Amino acid sequence: MGDFFADDPAPPSAPAPASASQPTTGFAPNRDLTGERLVFLTPFPISQAWIAAAKAAYPGLEIVDRRFNPWVADGGGSLPDDIDWATVTILVTGPALPTPAAAPKLKIVQLQSAGANYALDTPIFKEKSVVFCTANGVHGPQIAEWVIATYLNYQHKLLHYREKQKLGYWDRDTHDLDTVDAVSQRVGILGYGSIGRQVARAATALGSEVYAYTARPRPTPESRHDDAYYVPGLGDPEGVLPAKWFSGTDPEDIDTFLASGLDLLVVALPLTPQTKGLLGSAQFKVLYDASPSGGEGEGEGEKKRPKTYVSNVGRGPVIRTDDLIDAVNDGWLRGAALDVTDPEPLPKGHPLWTTENVTVTPHGGGEVY
Amino acid sequence: MGDFFADDPAPPSAPAPASASQPTTGFAPNRDLTGERLVFLTPFPISQAWIAAAKAAYPGLEIVDRRFNPWVADGGGSLPDDIDWATVTILVTGPALPTPAAAPKLKIVQLQSAGANYALDTPIFKEKSVVFCTANGVHGPQIAEWVIATYLNYQHKLLHYREKQKLGYWDRDTHDLDTVDAVSQRVGILGYGSIGRQVARAATALGSEVYAYTARPRPTPESRHDDAYYVPGLGDPEGVLPAKWFSGTDPEDIDTFLASGLDLLVVALPLTPQTKGLLGSAQFKVLYDASPSGGEGEGEGEKKRPKTYVSNVGRGPVIRTDDLIDAVNDGWLRGAALDVTDPEPLPKGHPLWTTENVTVTPHGGGEVY
Repeated sequence: MGDFFADDPAPPSAPAPASASQPTTGFAPNRDLTGERLVFLTPFPISQAWIAAAKAAYPGLEIVDRRFNPWVADGGGSLPDDIDWATVTILVTGPALPTPAAAPKLKIVQLQSAGANYALDTPIFKEKSVVFCTANGVHGPQIAEWVIATYLNYQHKLLHYREKQKLGYWDRDTHDLDTVDAVSQRVGILGYGSIGRQVARAATALGSEVYAYTARPRPTPESRHDDAYYVPGLGDPEGVLPAKWFSGTDPEDIDTFLASGLDLLVVALPLTPQTKGLLGSAQFKVLYDASPSGGEGEGEGEKKRPKTYVSNVGRGPVIRTDDLIDAVNDGWLRGAALDVTDPEPLPKGHPLWTTENVTVTPHGGGEVY
Repeated sequence: MGDFFADDPAPPSAPAPASASQPTTGFAPNRDLTGERLVFLTPFPISQAWIAAAKAAYPGLEIVDRRFNPWVADGGGSLPDDIDWATVTILVTGPALPTPAAAPKLKIVQLQSAGANYALDTPIFKEKSVVFCTANGVHGPQIAEWVIATYLNYQHKLLHYREKQKLGYWDRDTHDLDTVDAVSQRVGILGYGSIGRQVARAATALGSEVYAYTARPRPTPESRHDDAYYVPGLGDPEGVLPAKWFSGTDPEDIDTFLASGLDLLVVALPLTPQTKGLLGSAQFKVLYDASPSGGEGEGEGEKKRPKTYVSNVGRGPVIRTDDLIDAVNDGWLRGAALDVTDPEPLPKGHPLWTTENVTVTPHGGGEVY
């Protein structure tokens, strides 16, 4: 087991280079970083304030702030050819990586993603002289916001009201029956890492109770710590927010967690051979069985009201897509928000696009590619 | 000045009767409440668990749980005629109120709204033997969720992705340029009462900085307390969350607050002669002037990037509607979310419905009527 679910990934093994929060501490004795050349290959603009601060702190550092999507449609790997790669020493990128021959001076690569799977087999990754850093921990707040926003949209029927707005119709016919707030709801977080812990912080602030699930048991306060990067004040690095902790790697362990009466199940697992297809009909049935009965008389075989809404921000194949569609259509689940899908990209015409009470976004919740 | 903005309304002057959280403590010596008849006139269902607990605690209490919208289209006031009003002792309602002659045994009225303006001129309100209780403080979490959800929808372009979902189109063309998280953003809360304080709690959990505005100065820790009802653990009853406090009732005081660099301005003011029309073109200009310059070269008269998004959950007429539309269309504001409008209901064809980057919902954020 161990880090089966990778819910507690280790921090990067080297001090982070140029990050968005503060300039580097310099490479003594070259304190002004003369001769260092930092290239940003990012689809988003770098803060002008950050660049100004970096230039003031390190007058010798040359910064090339280049708008470029290192996750281009062909899967990445290509590089802009108008940059003099022979002189680049620090690179902020994604799958677009130079060869050792093309970038002989490269010392540090800062990836923009939490995962590094695409880099592991590249020649430059195997160069001992090049330090690679992931962005693990950076995306927690953004993805947590996506989880909170999509869930509140469902609870407050905001997509319904959006349609009414388009019609110019002040809809007071239905609104007062269908808004539910998050106070006293129970949020289960499957994979209590960087993302899950920030979801926990936000959910707690909304008055929800948090149940955490990790692969290995976390029985002591010390065992609940997470040493990954957190934006100061955010997440739950100490592991103090959950009301209950669940753990294990057997299907029965997962079932115990799923049977705990979850209003919202947040899936924040990486894709591993063990997590692939982890959530399917059998697991959705457990969620349904834990739902309250439908009405006044609790007859045998009576239809229950589904209790759980599922939010997947991990990887698409952790959920069996066809089973999810059936579970929502059959009333086993209230609905689902999916920033990741299987298949991905989701093709035109796929039934997931049109399943009622399902929100699909194109893997952009945290701009993690 | 004093409670000019009513940002610190007093708690109800009597102990609350049957609330959603716990049964009453009984009217000694009639501890089982024999002879008491409680009628719910609510558009939403009462929790069966609550009713069961109340019946167990007070076997003599009769509970009539009636689905009825006391804010009916005619403005309220009418009552269901199949209830024996002569025997009702406790009533949970809104504007639908009996006369003293029709309900001679009535002792307690629990309103479902934070405001009681509609009740003040009714004969039953003037009966000394009838205690009225408002629901002040109850709606904070719901309305705060509405504020957070509509803002995150804007920041994460979730309404854009909703349209793409309808087309079945996995949109990776634009998404990576336009998502902004709330970390390190500044949220200004105009009217730091029950609602504003819960917005502050949620915004803080998302990593935003909170600036509070109240009518009277709050220079000491004690002065920042709020004695209104809060769901335990929620809101900011101690007044410890804001990084800065602003106050005053002069236009210049408001301008100082608006010039403080707000990414999100939350308007949570009641409607009074002093707050009517408080925010118009002049105030939106102050917000715009505090926005950063648009690009690299900061030339004279250069177009700025608007910084502030406005969220109104107070009352519609606090904002001058035409000025708001102009401010959004002219790029002085990023956009607006309005659960309250002026006029209200917003008529079909009103330009607010179709102003880009404006979200309108029909005064349902907290189901406050």
